[in-house]
Amino acid sequence: MLEPSAETYASVVGLRTVRRFRPEPLSPDDRDAILEAGRWTGSSKNRQSWTVIVITERAQIERLAECGDFTKPLLGAATVLVPVRLPDGYDWDLGRMSQNMMLAAAARGVGSCPITFHREDCAREVLGVPDDHGCRFALAMGYPDESAELAGRSSFSMGGRKSLESLVRNDRF
Amino acid sequence: MLEPSAETYASVVGLRTVRRFRPEPLSPDDRDAILEAGRWTGSSKNRQSWTVIVITERAQIERLAECGDFTKPLLGAATVLVPVRLPDGYDWDLGRMSQNMMLAAAARGVGSCPITFHREDCAREVLGVPDDHGCRFALAMGYPDESAELAGRSSFSMGGRKSLESLVRNDRF
Repeated sequence: MLEPSAETYASVVGLRTVRRFRPEPLSPDDRDAILEAGRWTGSSKNRQSWTVIVITERAQIERLAECGDFTKPLLGAATVLVPVRLPDGYDWDLGRMSQNMMLAAAARGVGSCPITFHREDCAREVLGVPDDHGCRFALAMGYPDESAELAGRSSFSMGGRKSLESLVRNDRF
Repeated sequence: MLEPSAETYASVVGLRTVRRFRPEPLSPDDRDAILEAGRWTGSSKNRQSWTVIVITERAQIERLAECGDFTKPLLGAATVLVPVRLPDGYDWDLGRMSQNMMLAAAARGVGSCPITFHREDCAREVLGVPDDHGCRFALAMGYPDESAELAGRSSFSMGGRKSLESLVRNDRF
């Protein structure tokens, strides 16, 4: 077991999406540290039924941006990560891995924004992912453009959350 | 943006499953801190299409343990959390929320073990979850029984991971 950590707790609760990035690429150290956090994520029966596609080619990123309805953060991203679900995997495990990579990114000063490919077949074609694999989600990543981020915050991106009372039920639905 | 944090990074990479728990219940403060971390998790369009069922009734936990193939850690858990996917939600978002709750738990000294309900209809019936909602996964939680945990570690639970080279592909699958 790890030692308890108030700093980690604050980081987990405090993670927020970053949608506007500076143009420079991720440093190789930051990129690898983020991927390491994905690599070490737990998965059902430790099957690790996943692959991560690391995308920096602008043409690939622009094509991917056509595959979802709210993909603007992709276009400014330094790097796009696409976790691919292998045939015996679960999207739930991919979500766990993605959260780890976003938290690790923030811990290294890298911002991230989750993206949904509403047209998964489109993403599959762009990336050459087989039909029996899943690639419905991506993470746009880059060093935060803090001033653009602050200026661009909408009521949506500042969105609150349901109360604990409305989130939680006891013992049964 | 949060400040970069080497401590958070180490916590994210270092999270490991705990399968053996001490018998005492979670303190209300720990329980609420874990749920808060779930509550603040990001989700697609901030829809928060989820509910969390907090289970401490032993009879409910025993019935749930019949709903999956590898559920033994449930039986010793102080509390079981079942994130429920509402009809317009994604299991990927539930995975993100679950990872946050596991990391928050570890940051408070609470151990956790993800559980799959291979017979989701069974879990739906036990918990009274509607047919168009999802409840395929759970988190067994409790204070770690460190000595039992060390004694019980199998080669499975100490499992390594794929190498970074075999996990990652560049620009396309």
